[in-house]
Order: sequence, then C-alpha cells, then structure tokens
Amino acid sequence: MDDQAVRLGIEALIGEYAERIDEDRLEEWPALFADPCKYLVICRSNYEAGMRQGVMYAATRGMLLDRVFSIRRANLFEPHRYRHVIGPIRIKSAEGGVAVAHSHFIVARIMHDGATSLFATGRYLDRIDISAEDYRFVDRIVVLDSEKIDTLLAIPL
Amino acid sequence: MDDQAVRLGIEALIGEYAERIDEDRLEEWPALFADPCKYLVICRSNYEAGMRQGVMYAATRGMLLDRVFSIRRANLFEPHRYRHVIGPIRIKSAEGGVAVAHSHFIVARIMHDGATSLFATGRYLDRIDISAEDYRFVDRIVVLDSEKIDTLLAIPL
Amino acid sequence: MDDQAVRLGIEALIGEYAERIDEDRLEEWPALFADPCKYLVICRSNYEAGMRQGVMYAATRGMLLDRVFSIRRANLFEPHRYRHVIGPIRIKSAEGGVAVAHSHFIVARIMHDGATSLFATGRYLDRIDISAEDYRFVDRIVVLDSEKIDTLLAIPL
Repeated sequence: MDDQAVRLGIEALIGEYAERIDEDRLEEWPALFADPCKYLVICRSNYEAGMRQGVMYAATRGMLLDRVFSIRRANLFEPHRYRHVIGPIRIKSAEGGVAVAHSHFIVARIMHDGATSLFATGRYLDRIDISAEDYRFVDRIVVLDSEKIDTLLAIPL
Repeated sequence: MDDQAVRLGIEALIGEYAERIDEDRLEEWPALFADPCKYLVICRSNYEAGMRQGVMYAATRGMLLDRVFSIRRANLFEPHRYRHVIGPIRIKSAEGGVAVAHSHFIVARIMHDGATSLFATGRYLDRIDISAEDYRFVDRIVVLDSEKIDTLLAIPL
Repeated sequence: MDDQAVRLGIEALIGEYAERIDEDRLEEWPALFADPCKYLVICRSNYEAGMRQGVMYAATRGMLLDRVFSIRRANLFEPHRYRHVIGPIRIKSAEGGVAVAHSHFIVARIMHDGATSLFATGRYLDRIDISAEDYRFVDRIVVLDSEKIDTLLAIPL
C-alpha cells in the first residue's frame, strides 16, 4: 500500500470527523466508524490508571446514533457549537489493514450568544480500518487533558 | 494534474496567508488573491440566512490593498497581532483549474501589552485558482462562528 | 532528495516534538536536536530588536537534558501540562542537507486541577538536519508573540 495514500486518507478521515461535528452534521458522524467500533471519551488520569470507563462510550454505530438522537430530542442544554483544530497527525503503524494514528486537539466552544472559550484539549488515539477505500475508525479513544469537563458533555468531541 | 502537487500548493497558499497576516506583512496579503476576487468575512448566522453582506468585503486586489492602507494610516485601534492555527484542510474538488477547499481556524489575539486571548473561530470556504504555478484565492469566504466580533474588526482574518 | 519525503520527515519531527513535551516524555525531548544545537525561546520584541538572549537557551543536548533534570528535581512549580497545536508548516528551503521551516503554534496549559487556559502563541523558526534518516533540529528558535510569559517558564515550548 502506498504510504502517501494512507497518510492522505487518514488526514481526510480526521478532518471529516471534525467537520461533521463542528458543522452540526451529527447524523453523519457515526458513519465514520466501523461497526462494531469503540468510541471512548476519558480523562487522562483515569486513562493512565487503566480505567476504561469514560464520560462517553459506544461500541456500535447504533450506540453512536442513539447519542445523536438524544442530543436532538432532549435539547436540554444551551445550544452551542465546537470548533476543532488538530495538531500534527503521527502515524504510528499501518499493517494488516489497520493504521494506528495519534493526534492532538484544541476545541473551542461557541455558545448561542457568541461567547467563545477554550473548551477542551487532548489526544486522539485511533485505530483506523484502511483496508477499504473509505477509511473508518475502529477505535477512537479521546483522552482529555483535564478532568474539569462538563459532566453533561453532550456533543461528541 | 497531480493530486499531491495540488494538495501541497493549496497548503502552501493557506499557510502563506496566515503567515503574512500574523507577521504583519499586510502589504503582501492582497497578492494571494486573484483579481478580481471575492473576500468576505461574515458570521455564520448571516451566512446561513443567505445574506452576502459581512463585516469585511472586497472584490478586487485594489480593495484589499485599500484596507491595508487604511489600517496603516488610521492607527486608531490599539496595536495588536493575530496568531492563526488551521485545522485539517479538506479539498472538496479540483476541476477546470479551480479547487474548492474548506478548513477550520482558531485565531488568538495578542495585544500590545502582551495580553493574549482567544479571538475568533470559524471556517475558510475557498475557491482557489490552481491553473498557474502560483495558486491564488478566487473566493475566500471567512465564516465566523460567533457574531460577537469587534465591529471595528481591523486586521483581516 | 524527494520533496515529498522531506516534507513528511519535517512534519514527523515537528509532531514528535509536540508529543514528547505534551505527553511528559521530557527525557526523550533532547534527542530531537542535533549536538551541538541551538534552542532559544525569546519574545518577538527582543527577537526583532536583534537580541539573542531569551527566556530559555541551550547550545548542546547536554544543556537541554540539564533543563529536564532540573524540572524533575526541583518540582517547585505547580504541576501542569501543555497541549500544542501547530499551524501549517512552511518549508522555506531545503539545500545542502539542511531545511529551513517555519510554523505557528498555540499552546494551552492544563493545571493539575484541570483549569485550562491559552498559555502561549508564537512561531517556530527551524533549521533541520535532513542529511540522515532521523531528522534533527539544528536550530529551533521559539519566538513568542507576547512578553507576558511566566518568567519561571519551566517546561520547554
């Protein structure tokens, strides 16, 4: 497999992920995952302590979609948007149809009234299915740098 | 045309744009646009409502340069600088000598006294002339996530 | 030398640098530099005034390592971490085994209690040894946008 093509495909997947969330196209977000998959949002101290329970978890596309539905239905929280910027993507390995990639992010949150703040920072630890033309996340573990994150974290990170 | 060359050229143009603004080389900024061109800074709600009037607009390099001159002449605002970081660049199409590319940004503002704050977040929606060796913006629409932006927005984003 | 391979190598080095600092693998950080090298953290106003003394300086890997040891030993400051995101990397030249590359950064700081803030913004002005397989920083000059930076700046930027 061509290294360069793999890199571009991974960058495209990671960029698409941020775009679908930030542009509020949440219904299209689960399709970026394999099925079954593993999606976990966890803070660093818990992650490093070996815990595997986080503030968000899904094992299938259906579970991801359930989260989107509940966001749409509930509407309990104040409307807001995220804006992701993502640091250099480091491809750790790419073998047997699966790539391991790490990247960094900073996410700003924009409230309905326009107030903008630094919301979250952390790492993406990804295992990506690169065996078919459309790359998909097999695992996406979102390790947050801080524990000080809204427990009612609603929109996926 | 070689896909990879197009990608590198687009990344170089977008990087150069940030560099010329952030390093206060504003006089060199209009040269990154085609002539005529379209440069529009608009907040998301207005953009999504179909409005095409924003907080900054230019249709030619001359208009872009006028803005730079007025910044230099007026000196009314407190001196400050920006620092852009830009998320993954997604190339949506590249046909007939024009590429469509979307990217995300977070901009910090650094005041003269050193105070640094998160200033703006949003998207770049670009149409780029890739028919000649030096790529140029045909359209650059800057969609701001927030309406809470200084109305006296001076330095281009 | 293949332009594309050089670009990927430079991106990998710059990404690795951020990762080793942000993941608190500081002991592995000096190995990313040539020996001797030049590592300088300086604010823009001093840099532009031609001063070459900054808030951090090292001329050898040993000096870089000394800094890491003193961080580990002293433990005087409140524990914290950084998170870097890095804007587009512009390769200015690549000749005679040395590449010149500029990039932008925004760094968030995450305190032990989870409080997260925008800590620093600026530029990396790099000269990189690309003559061997593992690229290394010959010079890395970190030009901070603001002078308002903790004088007790501890972790390298």
